[in-house]
Amino acid sequence: MAGYSVDGTRLWSRLMDMAEIGATVNGGSHRLALSQDDEDGRELFLAWCANRGFTVVFDKIGNLFVRRAGRTPAAPAVAIGSHLDTQPMGGRFDGVLGVLAGLEVLETLEDLGVATEAPVEVAVWTNEEGARFQPAMMGSGVHCGVHPLAEALAVADASGIPVAQELERFGYDRGVEPGSHAIGSYLELHIEQGPILEQEGKSIGVVTGGQAIRWYSLDLRGEETHAGPMPMAMRRDPVRHLAAAAELVYRTGTADADARATIGRIETRPGSINAVPGELHLSVDLRHPDESVLEQMHGSLAEGIAQLNDAAEGVEISLEQIWHSPVVHFDAQLAAAVRSSAAARGYAARDMVSGAGHDAFHLAKAVPAAMVFVPCRGGISHNAQEFTAPEQAAAGANVLLDVTLQLAGAPAPPGTKA
Amino acid sequence: MAGYSVDGTRLWSRLMDMAEIGATVNGGSHRLALSQDDEDGRELFLAWCANRGFTVVFDKIGNLFVRRAGRTPAAPAVAIGSHLDTQPMGGRFDGVLGVLAGLEVLETLEDLGVATEAPVEVAVWTNEEGARFQPAMMGSGVHCGVHPLAEALAVADASGIPVAQELERFGYDRGVEPGSHAIGSYLELHIEQGPILEQEGKSIGVVTGGQAIRWYSLDLRGEETHAGPMPMAMRRDPVRHLAAAAELVYRTGTADADARATIGRIETRPGSINAVPGELHLSVDLRHPDESVLEQMHGSLAEGIAQLNDAAEGVEISLEQIWHSPVVHFDAQLAAAVRSSAAARGYAARDMVSGAGHDAFHLAKAVPAAMVFVPCRGGISHNAQEFTAPEQAAAGANVLLDVTLQLAGAPAPPGTKA
Repeated sequence: MAGYSVDGTRLWSRLMDMAEIGATVNGGSHRLALSQDDEDGRELFLAWCANRGFTVVFDKIGNLFVRRAGRTPAAPAVAIGSHLDTQPMGGRFDGVLGVLAGLEVLETLEDLGVATEAPVEVAVWTNEEGARFQPAMMGSGVHCGVHPLAEALAVADASGIPVAQELERFGYDRGVEPGSHAIGSYLELHIEQGPILEQEGKSIGVVTGGQAIRWYSLDLRGEETHAGPMPMAMRRDPVRHLAAAAELVYRTGTADADARATIGRIETRPGSINAVPGELHLSVDLRHPDESVLEQMHGSLAEGIAQLNDAAEGVEISLEQIWHSPVVHFDAQLAAAVRSSAAARGYAARDMVSGAGHDAFHLAKAVPAAMVFVPCRGGISHNAQEFTAPEQAAAGANVLLDVTLQLAGAPAPPGTKA
Repeated sequence: MAGYSVDGTRLWSRLMDMAEIGATVNGGSHRLALSQDDEDGRELFLAWCANRGFTVVFDKIGNLFVRRAGRTPAAPAVAIGSHLDTQPMGGRFDGVLGVLAGLEVLETLEDLGVATEAPVEVAVWTNEEGARFQPAMMGSGVHCGVHPLAEALAVADASGIPVAQELERFGYDRGVEPGSHAIGSYLELHIEQGPILEQEGKSIGVVTGGQAIRWYSLDLRGEETHAGPMPMAMRRDPVRHLAAAAELVYRTGTADADARATIGRIETRPGSINAVPGELHLSVDLRHPDESVLEQMHGSLAEGIAQLNDAAEGVEISLEQIWHSPVVHFDAQLAAAVRSSAAARGYAARDMVSGAGHDAFHLAKAVPAAMVFVPCRGGISHNAQEFTAPEQAAAGANVLLDVTLQLAGAPAPPGTKA
């Protein structure tokens, strides 16, 4: 191995060109799923693909599959994928790196005239971010049969525009049935969106799976009253119990170094400056790579909230689980191939578990799948500060190239042993 | 005194009739300022006035002045006022009681053929609640020169409709200049919106003034990050400091039994279930009837927040005062007249300070003004549960009647000493 390498300069230049579509004043990108900017980004990508003679198939949820043919057309394709939509005022790398590194693999094979047995494809999944249309990872979820197409089409954004209307606007309704375009295995390169690789001076994260996640609604109900007349001692103010409830949540985040506990949203109702809120609603996100530890975290939070409720006079405190995403395990052989490629190329690597969700989570339920992480500066993601260096992006793409060659079946590079 | 009395049955019946305009399914009323329901309520009120031959003047901000003539037309009018607009899904008494008790006074004088020297008026102030258009107490504020008319006209609601457009729709743009319709003194009856009268078994609150109020924006700024990848120890999560900040706020509310501290609104940004918020914004409302104690509360909160900020690594915590409403003192002679009326009628009464803002606060800056409180069940206000009993409403109206007669100059009732 390690005889072929991607063109890191071309990859970087494409990343920077793509960032110009929906560019934000502070250097980020804003391409909400199925917006005109998202479509413009896809068209730029497809123009690059067409220039190299790669063919494209799209489906009715807007997923794109760009193919470089193999010697055996009927062989299941090796797909490299991610997404081109961004968070609102998002960054240049989240998703985009995975797609453009996939294209870089196809172009490198083309440049070098390497014929693979199986076709090699780049998949662009629709609406991974879930910022405009929920749920996130929509396109890959529909492809894998997790969400029915009709359900996804009916989802509307905050202004009432349904997914179906935007898909029709761009002609995706003329695509193939989602899931009918089969792939044989799946690889995804992504920035870590965490600080660990950078801090440990590692270049490659061998992603063995994804954390289990539980989402909750934590609700405190008291009595709304005017901020003036009612004496403090007579209030049933739910905000007085917020500190204790938050403390319980954060305590579950200290189960061990892999535990995560987040209160991302707090809502007061009516939310008026001169009214004691009658209701307080908190979102809670608990994560752990070990399902049984997450179960313990769940138990201790539920018990703590129940005790808090018993002790809270005049305020009702309740916890309801609203979502559970089990632990994801990537294919062990594919992960081993990622590990071997990094070792062969001399990239410092470590195994890790993804804290965020990715399209690969859905794909892993259907086909052998794996992910590769590269460092990102300060662990920052989802905003304009998001950054990975050109050589880090190229290293990730080289690992994709190696594993793709192995999966798709290719002659050993000149001067190497197969 | 105490020879004349209002018709409590008529007053109650009018309260119940008015509640049918914008009636909510749970027994409350929903008449947002300058909505069609608000206008319908005003037209019902004006129809009752016209039936008794009272005349009406309105101004360009939509304030109504309904007059029963006096013997001396040029004498400054005694005005009894409040408002007919309600909170969203509000109650039947807040504001409405003050207006309809005023009408009841005029009708009682008419029934009994009592001629007063000065005219007696009922004032209906536009947009007291401030729920649809801010600020609250808009009509009385424009009347008293606190807010320029042009500024108030330009205020838009959440859907972008300006005050001016609604005023024109109902023809108020053809009214007199605000403030040009002068009044000589002002009385306002209101439900307490607190629990004290009920708890002490009192019928009448002699309102000597209004609390001083300070509003703040309490802001915590850290770093937004994904709820998954970033280890807990490396987060700059502003929500981790919420408990300490809230504790400081509530501690200021324990200065003495008259102190109030409220966190009415909490905002997380971006407010996403799977993101550690980068920013947290709290509203703080501090009140005290003694300006110097409120100043101490302000000082201790500001100092506490500054210390918290010094101790909070990676999170910036700041406090900004955004509004200050000084203590309001009502006219001592008018308050004494309220006290005397209650005593003469055998109504148990106590002096108190208003915790909420009222139109009378603006009027008190311009003319001698006073307020009368009656109990409301459980201290509840601003929702459908709001309730004061028919005999309590009548007691408040009788006190208005007595003080009005004294201010407007009327012959002593038969069988009493002047």
